Amino acid sequence: VTRILITSGPTRQYLDPVRYLTNASSGRMGDALARAVLALGHEVVIVSGPVEVKYPEAARVHWIVSTDELLEVSRREFQHCQGVIGAAAPCDYQPQRVSETKISKTGGPLVLELIETPDVMATLGAEKRADQWAVGFALETDDQRFKALTKLIKKSCDLMVLNGPQAMNSLENQVEIMDSSGEVLKSFAGTKEWVGQEILNVIQERLIRSKS
Amino acid sequence: VTRILITSGPTRQYLDPVRYLTNASSGRMGDALARAVLALGHEVVIVSGPVEVKYPEAARVHWIVSTDELLEVSRREFQHCQGVIGAAAPCDYQPQRVSETKISKTGGPLVLELIETPDVMATLGAEKRADQWAVGFALETDDQRFKALTKLIKKSCDLMVLNGPQAMNSLENQVEIMDSSGEVLKSFAGTKEWVGQEILNVIQERLIRSKS
Repeated sequence: VTRILITSGPTRQYLDPVRYLTNASSGRMGDALARAVLALGHEVVIVSGPVEVKYPEAARVHWIVSTDELLEVSRREFQHCQGVIGAAAPCDYQPQRVSETKISKTGGPLVLELIETPDVMATLGAEKRADQWAVGFALETDDQRFKALTKLIKKSCDLMVLNGPQAMNSLENQVEIMDSSGEVLKSFAGTKEWVGQEILNVIQERLIRSKS
Repeated sequence: VTRILITSGPTRQYLDPVRYLTNASSGRMGDALARAVLALGHEVVIVSGPVEVKYPEAARVHWIVSTDELLEVSRREFQHCQGVIGAAAPCDYQPQRVSETKISKTGGPLVLELIETPDVMATLGAEKRADQWAVGFALETDDQRFKALTKLIKKSCDLMVLNGPQAMNSLENQVEIMDSSGEVLKSFAGTKEWVGQEILNVIQERLIRSKS
């Protein structure tokens, strides 16, 4: 049996017990991908940030909040999976200091010093064995193909799915799939359910079959 | 007929098209309060940030994203309401500059300069007529009663509901109700539904009847 790991939803980086930095992400693309994985007869493990989406009953779901937690759980689960699809939108900056109590307003400006969180897909990509594969997602607002290809290289992904900001919190999506040479293999537009199935068809043909 | 305005849910302040600063808030307290208002035979108007809660069908709901939008819609609606209950958790800081394109990671730290957003309840409190009332919420992690009373004064509220961080994204809540002299009138613990009804009973007795 082929087991596939899907990361899904946003992560949160808290400044204090109330306020946090996050990314717009509903978890709907991760849910659609999980359903498509199950429909092809594979097993699926989801590591998800806080979302209201109802993931399929047949999926094993780990709930996390921060990017550190996403990385930790994903690394552990990835060892037992053939591949990973990184549909999560991890918050990539975190406050240098987190306040234990709610920061009171002062009437003046607040300077927030942020540092990068760990790169989840780059870590999984670097650690993947020869019999494993990784598919990343790149959401860019400008210079999309170039930024997607540099992300694919940096994260050691086999395929990269490109989408634009119109994907966020929407039921529809428009994507391109790029391979590691930068070639655009396919492009789809439609509901996230349908786009998820089409992405899985490409993954099935290009990655799952060849590594099974 | 008595019409009551309820603000509910979080607001978001975007840094760029993908990342935003926000507060943890599910909208469940606002929903419970709206149901309690309707159960007492009054009309309710809700101004809400992005939440997944299903507000009652009989409520008129305005959806907003930012604190500026929350303020603008609430000011307009408040003119036609007897009172306002501020159950929203407006994001109180916004980036000095918002990037039109997604900020690319540099590998180094990111300094974010934040300025305060407008204070929605302070504005409504300052503008309220003699026949109107305002009830605020204070969520504090430390020195709760003192901070709640200073908020009540600054926001010209008639009553302040105090709750702790355990209220966020929870089905339960534990609150105290404080009047403008700083006296704690009541305290309740239980489901948000039940706490919402109890808060409305106090508002009905102290504010709605005396101003009708």
